[in-house]
Amino acid sequence: MDSQTLYRQLADHYLAAIKAGTLAQGERMPSVRSLMRKHAVSLSTALQSLRQLESEGWVEARPRSGYFVRRPWSKTILPLEEPSVSRPPDPAQYVGIHARVSEFIAQGRRHPVKVNLSGARAAPELYPAEELKNAAIRALRREPGMLVRGTSPGGNAHFRTVLARRAMESGMVLSPDDITVTHGCSEGLNLALRAVAQAGDVIAVESPAYFGLLQILESLGLRALEIPTSATTGLSLDALELAMRTYDNIKAVVVVPHLQNPLGSIMPDEHKRRLVQLCERRAVPLIEDDCYSDLVDVAAPLNAVKSWDRSGNVIHCASLSKTLAPGMRLGWMVAGRWQARVTMLKYAQSHDNEEWSQLAAADYIASPAFERHLRRLRTALRQQRERVAEAIATAFPSGTRLNMPDGGLTLWLELPNKLSSDKVFEAAMQEGILVAPGAMFSNSSRFDHFLRISCGFPHTRDIEEAMRRLGGIVAMLSRKAA
Amino acid sequence: MDSQTLYRQLADHYLAAIKAGTLAQGERMPSVRSLMRKHAVSLSTALQSLRQLESEGWVEARPRSGYFVRRPWSKTILPLEEPSVSRPPDPAQYVGIHARVSEFIAQGRRHPVKVNLSGARAAPELYPAEELKNAAIRALRREPGMLVRGTSPGGNAHFRTVLARRAMESGMVLSPDDITVTHGCSEGLNLALRAVAQAGDVIAVESPAYFGLLQILESLGLRALEIPTSATTGLSLDALELAMRTYDNIKAVVVVPHLQNPLGSIMPDEHKRRLVQLCERRAVPLIEDDCYSDLVDVAAPLNAVKSWDRSGNVIHCASLSKTLAPGMRLGWMVAGRWQARVTMLKYAQSHDNEEWSQLAAADYIASPAFERHLRRLRTALRQQRERVAEAIATAFPSGTRLNMPDGGLTLWLELPNKLSSDKVFEAAMQEGILVAPGAMFSNSSRFDHFLRISCGFPHTRDIEEAMRRLGGIVAMLSRKAA
Ligand SMILES: Cc1ncc(COP(=O)(O)O)c(C=O)c1O
Ligand SMILES: Cc1ncc(COP(=O)(O)O)c(C=O)c1O
Repeated sequence: MDSQTLYRQLADHYLAAIKAGTLAQGERMPSVRSLMRKHAVSLSTALQSLRQLESEGWVEARPRSGYFVRRPWSKTILPLEEPSVSRPPDPAQYVGIHARVSEFIAQGRRHPVKVNLSGARAAPELYPAEELKNAAIRALRREPGMLVRGTSPGGNAHFRTVLARRAMESGMVLSPDDITVTHGCSEGLNLALRAVAQAGDVIAVESPAYFGLLQILESLGLRALEIPTSATTGLSLDALELAMRTYDNIKAVVVVPHLQNPLGSIMPDEHKRRLVQLCERRAVPLIEDDCYSDLVDVAAPLNAVKSWDRSGNVIHCASLSKTLAPGMRLGWMVAGRWQARVTMLKYAQSHDNEEWSQLAAADYIASPAFERHLRRLRTALRQQRERVAEAIATAFPSGTRLNMPDGGLTLWLELPNKLSSDKVFEAAMQEGILVAPGAMFSNSSRFDHFLRISCGFPHTRDIEEAMRRLGGIVAMLSRKAA
Repeated sequence: MDSQTLYRQLADHYLAAIKAGTLAQGERMPSVRSLMRKHAVSLSTALQSLRQLESEGWVEARPRSGYFVRRPWSKTILPLEEPSVSRPPDPAQYVGIHARVSEFIAQGRRHPVKVNLSGARAAPELYPAEELKNAAIRALRREPGMLVRGTSPGGNAHFRTVLARRAMESGMVLSPDDITVTHGCSEGLNLALRAVAQAGDVIAVESPAYFGLLQILESLGLRALEIPTSATTGLSLDALELAMRTYDNIKAVVVVPHLQNPLGSIMPDEHKRRLVQLCERRAVPLIEDDCYSDLVDVAAPLNAVKSWDRSGNVIHCASLSKTLAPGMRLGWMVAGRWQARVTMLKYAQSHDNEEWSQLAAADYIASPAFERHLRRLRTALRQQRERVAEAIATAFPSGTRLNMPDGGLTLWLELPNKLSSDKVFEAAMQEGILVAPGAMFSNSSRFDHFLRISCGFPHTRDIEEAMRRLGGIVAMLSRKAA
């Protein structure tokens, strides 16, 4: 058999498996190496067969991850458009998002909610409550005295050692002393912003942005300069450069490099490097919010933006809230050259964190159970995302746009005909379905026809049904709007 | 026997017990009622015998608490002087205390410390670590899911119910919803100040004040207006009124009504009432830091300043850090008419507290063990304060001044001849003894010849010896200074 026939034969073999559903939509194809081993073929044959399947639309390549069985919805749903980056940036605005966000939340509380798709969180059963509980009980038994002694400045030494060790996998070389433990990523962002800016200052943020960040800016009296951000590669560096040339009063840039909330974008390494250099050159502090990196669906951990930092200009913030224990409120930050100031602010703001959760978390993170848990969580989330995306492809009218993120807890979609997502929010709420309208994610009205939908929960019938209704609502309202 | 002889006989009976040491210095005398019962005497006889002993200097009356065997040191040590309140207040200053405090702490870390008398904390063994641990384990077993679920807005409902119930004993009528759980009293103070003031604003504080409060002001860019404060009755209302007439830009008053740190003063109820009215009339928010009230050595709990508040103008902050669990970092606040703003700030600053410690603490506080613990703690602290005061009376040169607070963890003393407490701090550190110099407690130099000494630790030989050496250092340096 010549090599031509060979690669075709190999491709057909897998095509049959795909058609039979043996290889499900969204599933990872065997790697090139394992194809070579299993079928005793050469590198080029293995590659050729995968490329053949790709060119026929059966599989798709994902950077760093390999080939995946292509999702049917990706044929019917349009991708999101890239933001325009050449227009001059909007002027920076004081943030007035809190009242809006509170109103959405209050409305949600006034109505009986049957299916809550509004959060960026995963189902409790996807986290290892029992094992964490056991780790906590062990820590308490070992050191009950920690409940009644003073706390350790900066955080528990063991926890910080475990974190510093793990940070190496994201390309950061840290000493435990470089780390300050915080109450979630939120407190880290807060301290970072307080360290580098004061009321009235301008902060460059992604657009759209996590509403919690906008609330922090609002609470500190900071102004947000919203920078166009791609749903695939994240913050637009060209737009940021343009903004920096236009305004000379930007006091910090805040970026979520991995699985940006709500976009789900992942910044390529090359962008991270350029971003670090750009901020360095302009002497603008760069704040990295990396609370989602362990949810990225790739084989090896991605490099933190901080890993390119040589001067201490990058403040790295992260937490366990999304990856391990939403209820433990444990975060940390690496404050670089602002560490002394952050230490003082942290002391004045809330003193040190209590030791208890730190010891329990350290125990768990240092064990092999942590990686096992992360793998399971990522797999579950991938399947859930696929199911929600499929439901969108099936139930939502054409003209709906969506990118499939490589991980995480949510999908971000654009409604057809510039349909107001506030209207969809309200109509859905009447049926007991809660979603997050785009207006929550920007100080501007640019995302008023976007929705963020949670994929954090196992895809039950109720969710399937809620997605169907949601699609119906969008279809109905967008016909009216058209 | 006529009643004259009777009361004298009764007095002699107790005098013998005092001389024999059966009734120790600082111990509480039997109450009038129990004297009446035990000795079958009339009210007036019982009272007369106590007054006789008082007039002879053997016992002393303490407001609300009864009569106590008089301490010998109170004969040799002068009381602190009342602050002058007629001078016009110093202009408000931006606080620059952090560098100074850090420097003290850093110096303390550079030297090997044998005896640390610098903190406002009690020995770990005075807190119920084992019982708290058991409560924590019970809470974890009952609800492991809380580790992996979202947290409750404002704090755990059960904890807040327990707190609201306890608040009644301090004269506050609260619903659990009025309470916001915080990371220690520190976060409460922070949120309170952020709610009512912004950078540049003037805040009236006690002088001297808890350095942590000054650090909070500094970190928020607020200015401190230091109001003369009595070591017995606390914040001078006359001085505050004068200040309010002089400056019309005071944005808040912060007061520690019970066991002010470092003075140990306790505000009489009448002052609390006037203070609430004064602030109300002038529309200046009043922030009450009440983290020490459970350490006051009286039979019944004192009324919180907040208990006089009818309009929501008082923000009440408290915590368990001093009374139950220094390592749990649990506090709470009642934000009155700023509750909505505090809720938003708390969310933006650190989101809700984790549930875990709240459930454990609620469990313990709701049990009879809590009051038992508080009684034991207060008794231990009283004995320790007596011993430290005795050591001061014995070892420190004449001219040293000291008030005996009715509770708490520290003594505040004035050195003779305006001797610099920084010098004492340094000399003591050379001998491995750490104390808190007065300069930490004010933005001015007014307390540079004061010292705060911890009484939180059981009076060991090491402490006795350290106090002897400290006295020697003060005597030696004050001879030089004179
Ligand atoms: C981008 C981003 N940063 C920070 C947070 C908050 O993190 P934490 O819960 O650890 O405070 C979230 C939560 O939604 C988020 O999406
Ligand atoms: C008057 C006063 N307020 C607040 C605090 C800090 O309280 P927490 O440890 O609960 O944050 C202290 C601690 O020394 C204090 O003395």
